[in-house]
Amino acid sequence: MTARAFGADEVILAGDRDPSALETWDSVTERFGGDFQSRFEESPMSWLRKESKSGEITIVHLTMYGQNWTTSVPSISTDKPAVVVVGGTKVPAEVFHLADHNISVGNQPHSEVAALAVFLDSWLGSIDEESKFTGAQMKVIPSTKGKVVINSDED
Amino acid sequence: MTARAFGADEVILAGDRDPSALETWDSVTERFGGDFQSRFEESPMSWLRKESKSGEITIVHLTMYGQNWTTSVPSISTDKPAVVVVGGTKVPAEVFHLADHNISVGNQPHSEVAALAVFLDSWLGSIDEESKFTGAQMKVIPSTKGKVVINSDED
Repeated sequence: MTARAFGADEVILAGDRDPSALETWDSVTERFGGDFQSRFEESPMSWLRKESKSGEITIVHLTMYGQNWTTSVPSISTDKPAVVVVGGTKVPAEVFHLADHNISVGNQPHSEVAALAVFLDSWLGSIDEESKFTGAQMKVIPSTKGKVVINSDED
Repeated sequence: MTARAFGADEVILAGDRDPSALETWDSVTERFGGDFQSRFEESPMSWLRKESKSGEITIVHLTMYGQNWTTSVPSISTDKPAVVVVGGTKVPAEVFHLADHNISVGNQPHSEVAALAVFLDSWLGSIDEESKFTGAQMKVIPSTKGKVVINSDED
Protein backbone atom coordinates (compact mmCIF):
# COMPACT_ATOMS: atom_id res chain seq x y z
CA MET A 1 0.00 0.00 0.00
CA THR A 2 2.92 2.29 0.66
CA ALA A 3 4.40 1.48 -2.76
CA ARG A 4 1.06 2.32 -4.33
CA ALA A 5 0.59 5.56 -2.38
CA PHE A 6 4.05 6.78 -3.37
CA GLY A 7 3.71 6.11 -7.09
CA ALA A 8 4.64 2.50 -7.85
CA ASP A 9 2.67 0.74 -10.61
CA GLU A 10 3.03 -2.79 -9.26
CA VAL A 11 4.00 -4.77 -6.19
CA ILE A 12 5.55 -8.22 -6.50
CA LEU A 13 5.36 -10.31 -3.35
CA ALA A 14 8.05 -12.93 -2.71
CA GLY A 15 8.72 -15.32 0.15
CA ASP A 16 5.64 -16.46 1.99
CA ARG A 17 2.66 -16.79 -0.31
CA ASP A 18 0.07 -14.61 1.38
CA PRO A 19 -3.18 -14.36 -0.60
CA SER A 20 -4.70 -12.00 1.99
CA ALA A 21 -2.00 -9.40 1.27
CA LEU A 22 -2.80 -9.45 -2.44
CA GLU A 23 -6.52 -9.24 -1.69
CA THR A 24 -6.02 -6.22 0.56
CA TRP A 25 -3.95 -4.39 -2.05
CA ASP A 26 -6.45 -5.10 -4.82
CA SER A 27 -9.31 -4.02 -2.60
CA VAL A 28 -7.59 -0.72 -1.73
CA THR A 29 -6.99 -0.06 -5.42
CA GLU A 30 -10.60 -0.82 -6.23
CA ARG A 31 -11.84 1.60 -3.56
CA PHE A 32 -9.22 4.34 -3.82
CA GLY A 33 -8.56 4.23 -7.55
CA GLY A 34 -5.68 3.92 -9.96
CA ASP A 35 -4.26 0.97 -11.83
CA PHE A 36 -1.99 -0.68 -9.26
CA GLN A 37 -1.10 -4.30 -9.97
CA SER A 38 -0.08 -6.98 -7.49
CA ARG A 39 1.14 -10.52 -7.87
CA PHE A 40 3.10 -13.25 -6.10
CA GLU A 41 6.47 -14.34 -7.54
CA GLU A 42 7.43 -17.95 -6.90
CA SER A 43 11.10 -17.59 -7.90
CA PRO A 44 12.13 -14.04 -7.10
CA MET A 45 15.86 -14.56 -7.63
CA SER A 46 15.52 -16.14 -11.11
CA TRP A 47 13.11 -13.38 -12.00
CA LEU A 48 15.53 -10.72 -10.76
CA ARG A 49 18.48 -12.29 -12.62
CA LYS A 50 16.47 -12.27 -15.85
CA GLU A 51 15.46 -8.66 -15.34
CA SER A 52 19.04 -7.74 -14.56
CA LYS A 53 20.31 -9.43 -17.76
CA SER A 54 17.71 -7.72 -19.91
CA GLY A 55 19.25 -4.37 -19.05
CA GLU A 56 15.84 -2.82 -19.51
CA ILE A 57 15.22 -1.97 -15.89
CA THR A 58 17.13 -0.36 -13.06
CA ILE A 59 17.43 -2.49 -9.94
CA VAL A 60 17.44 -0.52 -6.70
CA HIS A 61 18.03 -2.40 -3.47
CA LEU A 62 17.10 -0.61 -0.26
CA THR A 63 19.33 -1.71 2.60
CA MET A 64 20.71 -0.03 5.70
CA TYR A 65 24.15 -1.05 4.44
CA GLY A 66 23.96 0.89 1.18
CA GLN A 67 25.03 4.32 -0.05
CA ASN A 68 23.28 7.36 1.36
CA TRP A 69 20.04 8.09 -0.48
CA THR A 70 20.32 11.86 -0.49
CA THR A 71 23.50 11.72 -2.53
CA SER A 72 22.56 8.64 -4.61
CA VAL A 73 19.01 9.40 -5.72
CA PRO A 74 19.97 12.01 -8.36
CA SER A 75 22.10 9.37 -10.14
CA ILE A 76 19.19 6.95 -10.61
CA SER A 77 17.70 7.22 -14.07
CA THR A 78 14.00 8.00 -14.32
CA ASP A 79 14.04 7.13 -18.03
CA LYS A 80 13.54 3.41 -17.61
CA PRO A 81 11.41 1.33 -15.25
CA ALA A 82 12.89 0.39 -11.90
CA VAL A 83 12.33 -2.47 -9.53
CA VAL A 84 12.90 -1.56 -5.89
CA VAL A 85 13.87 -4.52 -3.74
CA VAL A 86 12.91 -4.27 -0.07
CA GLY A 87 12.95 -7.13 2.34
CA GLY A 88 13.42 -8.23 5.88
CA THR A 89 16.43 -10.08 7.17
CA LYS A 90 16.36 -12.74 4.48
CA VAL A 91 17.45 -10.83 1.38
CA PRO A 92 20.08 -13.06 -0.34
CA ALA A 93 23.56 -11.55 -0.66
CA GLU A 94 23.27 -11.94 -4.43
CA VAL A 95 20.80 -9.03 -4.47
CA PHE A 96 23.66 -6.68 -3.52
CA HIS A 97 25.43 -7.72 -6.73
CA LEU A 98 22.42 -7.76 -9.03
CA ALA A 99 21.42 -4.30 -7.86
CA ASP A 100 22.46 -1.29 -9.92
CA HIS A 101 22.14 0.77 -6.73
CA ASN A 102 22.37 -0.37 -3.11
CA ILE A 103 20.85 2.50 -1.22
CA SER A 104 20.28 3.21 2.44
CA VAL A 105 17.68 5.56 3.83
CA GLY A 106 19.87 6.27 6.81
CA ASN A 107 22.33 3.72 8.17
CA GLN A 108 20.19 3.12 11.23
CA PRO A 109 17.85 0.16 11.63
CA HIS A 110 14.21 1.11 11.06
CA SER A 111 11.52 -0.10 8.69
CA GLU A 112 11.52 -1.35 5.09
CA VAL A 113 8.19 0.35 4.54
CA ALA A 114 9.51 3.67 5.84
CA ALA A 115 12.60 3.34 3.66
CA LEU A 116 10.47 2.61 0.60
CA ALA A 117 8.27 5.65 1.23
CA VAL A 118 11.15 8.07 1.76
CA PHE A 119 13.03 6.65 -1.23
CA LEU A 120 10.05 6.84 -3.62
CA ASP A 121 9.17 10.32 -2.39
CA SER A 122 12.68 11.57 -2.95
CA TRP A 123 13.14 9.79 -6.29
CA LEU A 124 9.74 10.39 -7.89
CA GLY A 125 8.68 13.53 -6.03
CA SER A 126 5.14 14.13 -4.88
CA ILE A 127 2.44 12.15 -6.62
CA ASP A 128 -0.41 13.96 -8.34
CA GLU A 129 -3.15 11.96 -6.65
CA GLU A 130 -5.83 13.33 -8.97
CA SER A 131 -4.23 11.84 -12.06
CA LYS A 132 -2.64 8.77 -10.47
CA PHE A 133 -5.71 7.47 -8.64
CA THR A 134 -8.53 7.83 -11.12
CA GLY A 135 -11.74 5.82 -10.94
CA ALA A 136 -11.86 5.86 -7.14
CA GLN A 137 -15.01 4.95 -5.26
CA MET A 138 -13.75 6.79 -2.18
CA LYS A 139 -11.86 10.01 -2.09
CA VAL A 140 -10.42 11.70 0.98
CA ILE A 141 -10.62 15.49 0.95
CA PRO A 142 -7.78 17.16 2.89
CA SER A 143 -9.20 18.78 6.00
CA THR A 144 -7.90 20.73 8.99
CA LYS A 145 -10.26 19.09 11.51
CA GLY A 146 -11.85 15.71 10.99
CA LYS A 147 -12.62 13.20 8.26
CA VAL A 148 -14.06 14.27 4.93
CA VAL A 149 -14.64 11.42 2.50
CA ILE A 150 -16.53 11.47 -0.77
CA ASN A 151 -18.07 8.10 -1.53
CA SER A 152 -19.17 7.83 -5.15
CA ASP A 153 -20.29 4.24 -4.77
CA GLU A 154 -23.38 4.89 -2.68
CA ASP A 155 -26.27 3.57 -4.70
CA MET B 1 12.80 2.65 15.47
CA THR B 2 11.66 4.78 12.57
CA ALA B 3 11.06 7.74 14.89
CA ARG B 4 14.57 7.30 16.28
CA ALA B 5 16.21 6.94 12.85
CA PHE B 6 14.53 10.12 11.61
CA GLY B 7 15.50 12.29 14.56
CA ALA B 8 12.94 11.90 17.36
CA ASP B 9 14.24 12.01 20.93
CA GLU B 10 11.57 9.84 22.50
CA VAL B 11 8.79 7.41 21.67
CA ILE B 12 5.70 7.12 23.86
CA LEU B 13 3.74 3.92 23.41
CA ALA B 14 0.00 3.93 24.08
CA GLY B 15 -2.72 1.33 23.75
CA ASP B 16 -1.55 -2.23 24.28
CA ARG B 17 1.22 -2.42 26.85
CA ASP B 18 3.96 -4.24 24.97
CA PRO B 19 7.17 -4.58 26.99
CA SER B 20 8.94 -6.34 24.10
CA ALA B 21 8.57 -3.22 21.93
CA LEU B 22 10.25 -1.04 24.57
CA GLU B 23 12.99 -3.64 25.01
CA THR B 24 13.68 -3.72 21.28
CA TRP B 25 13.89 0.06 21.05
CA ASP B 26 16.21 0.33 24.04
CA SER B 27 18.38 -2.46 22.68
CA VAL B 28 18.70 -0.76 19.28
CA THR B 29 19.68 2.49 20.99
CA GLU B 30 22.27 0.68 23.10
CA ARG B 31 23.80 -0.94 20.03
CA PHE B 32 23.44 1.84 17.48
CA GLY B 33 23.96 4.85 19.75
CA GLY B 34 22.29 8.08 20.67
CA ASP B 35 20.03 9.02 23.56
CA PHE B 36 16.60 7.83 22.44
CA GLN B 37 14.07 7.38 25.23
CA SER B 38 11.04 5.10 25.25
CA ARG B 39 8.18 4.63 27.67
CA PHE B 40 4.60 3.39 27.93
CA GLU B 41 1.81 5.89 28.64
CA GLU B 42 -1.19 4.53 30.51
CA SER B 43 -3.50 7.50 29.84
CA PRO B 44 -2.48 8.96 26.50
CA MET B 45 -5.50 11.25 26.14
CA SER B 46 -5.13 12.91 29.57
CA TRP B 47 -1.43 13.29 28.88
CA LEU B 48 -2.14 14.85 25.48
CA ARG B 49 -4.76 17.24 26.93
CA LYS B 50 -2.28 18.39 29.55
CA GLU B 51 0.43 18.92 26.95
CA SER B 52 -2.03 20.77 24.76
CA LYS B 53 -3.04 23.10 27.62
CA SER B 54 0.56 23.84 28.55
CA GLY B 55 1.05 25.46 25.15
CA GLU B 56 4.69 24.46 25.34
CA ILE B 57 4.60 21.86 22.61
CA THR B 58 3.23 21.61 19.10
CA ILE B 59 0.88 18.68 18.54
CA VAL B 60 1.05 17.20 15.06
CA HIS B 61 -1.40 14.46 14.16
CA LEU B 62 -0.60 12.37 11.12
CA THR B 63 -3.76 11.17 9.43
CA MET B 64 -4.76 10.41 5.87
CA TYR B 65 -7.62 12.87 6.39
CA GLY B 66 -5.42 15.87 7.14
CA GLN B 67 -3.93 18.74 5.19
CA ASN B 68 -1.26 17.98 2.62
CA TRP B 69 2.19 17.74 4.21
CA THR B 70 4.14 19.42 1.44
CA THR B 71 2.20 22.64 1.91
CA SER B 72 1.77 22.33 5.71
CA VAL B 73 5.26 21.42 6.90
CA PRO B 74 6.77 24.90 6.45
CA SER B 75 4.15 26.31 8.85
CA ILE B 76 5.13 24.00 11.72
CA SER B 77 7.43 25.73 14.17
CA THR B 78 10.79 24.10 14.86
CA ASP B 79 11.33 26.42 17.83
CA LYS B 80 9.46 24.32 20.37
CA PRO B 81 9.22 20.58 20.95
CA ALA B 82 6.58 18.65 19.05
CA VAL B 83 4.68 15.49 19.72
CA VAL B 84 3.71 13.60 16.61
CA VAL B 85 0.65 11.41 17.06
CA VAL B 86 0.47 8.35 14.81
CA GLY B 87 -1.91 5.51 15.29
CA GLY B 88 -3.94 2.81 13.69
CA THR B 89 -7.69 2.88 13.28
CA LYS B 90 -8.33 3.65 16.95
CA VAL B 91 -7.18 7.27 17.27
CA PRO B 92 -9.99 9.09 19.17
CA ALA B 93 -11.70 11.92 17.30
CA GLU B 94 -10.61 14.30 20.07
CA VAL B 95 -7.04 14.08 18.73
CA PHE B 96 -8.17 15.98 15.62
CA HIS B 97 -9.19 18.86 17.89
CA LEU B 98 -6.23 18.76 20.27
CA ALA B 99 -3.81 18.77 17.35
CA ASP B 100 -2.30 22.05 16.20
CA HIS B 101 -1.81 20.42 12.80
CA ASN B 102 -3.69 17.52 11.24
CA ILE B 103 -1.43 16.45 8.43
CA SER B 104 -1.65 13.80 5.76
CA VAL B 105 1.28 12.29 3.95
CA GLY B 106 -0.85 11.70 0.90
CA ASN B 107 -4.58 11.10 1.14
CA GLN B 108 -4.17 7.44 0.23
CA PRO B 109 -4.19 4.61 2.76
CA HIS B 110 -0.70 3.34 3.49
CA SER B 111 1.38 2.99 6.66
CA GLU B 112 1.71 5.05 9.85
CA VAL B 113 5.40 4.23 9.96
CA ALA B 114 5.90 5.41 6.38
CA ALA B 115 3.97 8.59 7.10
CA LEU B 116 6.08 9.26 10.19
CA ALA B 117 9.32 8.79 8.26
CA VAL B 118 8.33 11.04 5.38
CA PHE B 119 6.96 13.67 7.74
CA LEU B 120 10.04 13.76 9.99
CA ASP B 121 12.36 13.76 6.99
CA SER B 122 10.55 16.68 5.43
CA TRP B 123 10.14 18.61 8.69
CA LEU B 124 13.57 18.05 10.27
CA GLY B 125 15.63 17.41 7.16
CA SER B 126 18.36 14.79 7.00
CA ILE B 127 19.80 13.68 10.31
CA ASP B 128 23.51 14.01 10.94
CA GLU B 129 23.98 10.43 12.09
CA GLU B 130 27.50 11.11 13.37
CA SER B 131 26.32 13.62 15.95
CA LYS B 132 22.88 12.15 16.65
CA PHE B 133 23.95 8.57 17.31
CA THR B 134 27.03 8.88 19.44
CA GLY B 135 28.30 6.09 21.68
CA ALA B 136 27.30 3.33 19.28
CA GLN B 137 28.66 -0.20 19.66
CA MET B 138 27.86 -0.92 16.01
CA LYS B 139 28.20 1.42 13.11
CA VAL B 140 27.19 0.74 9.53
CA ILE B 141 29.52 2.18 6.92
CA PRO B 142 27.74 3.09 3.66
CA SER B 143 28.86 0.72 0.93
CA THR B 144 28.10 0.11 -2.74
CA LYS B 145 28.25 -3.70 -2.51
CA GLY B 146 27.65 -5.61 0.70
CA LYS B 147 27.64 -5.13 4.45
CA VAL B 148 30.31 -3.13 6.23
CA VAL B 149 29.83 -2.87 9.98
CA ILE B 150 32.25 -1.59 12.58
CA ASN B 151 31.73 -3.30 15.91
CA SER B 152 33.44 -1.45 18.74
CA ASP B 153 32.15 -3.85 21.36
CA GLU B 154 34.34 -6.81 20.41
CA ASP B 155 36.48 -7.48 23.44
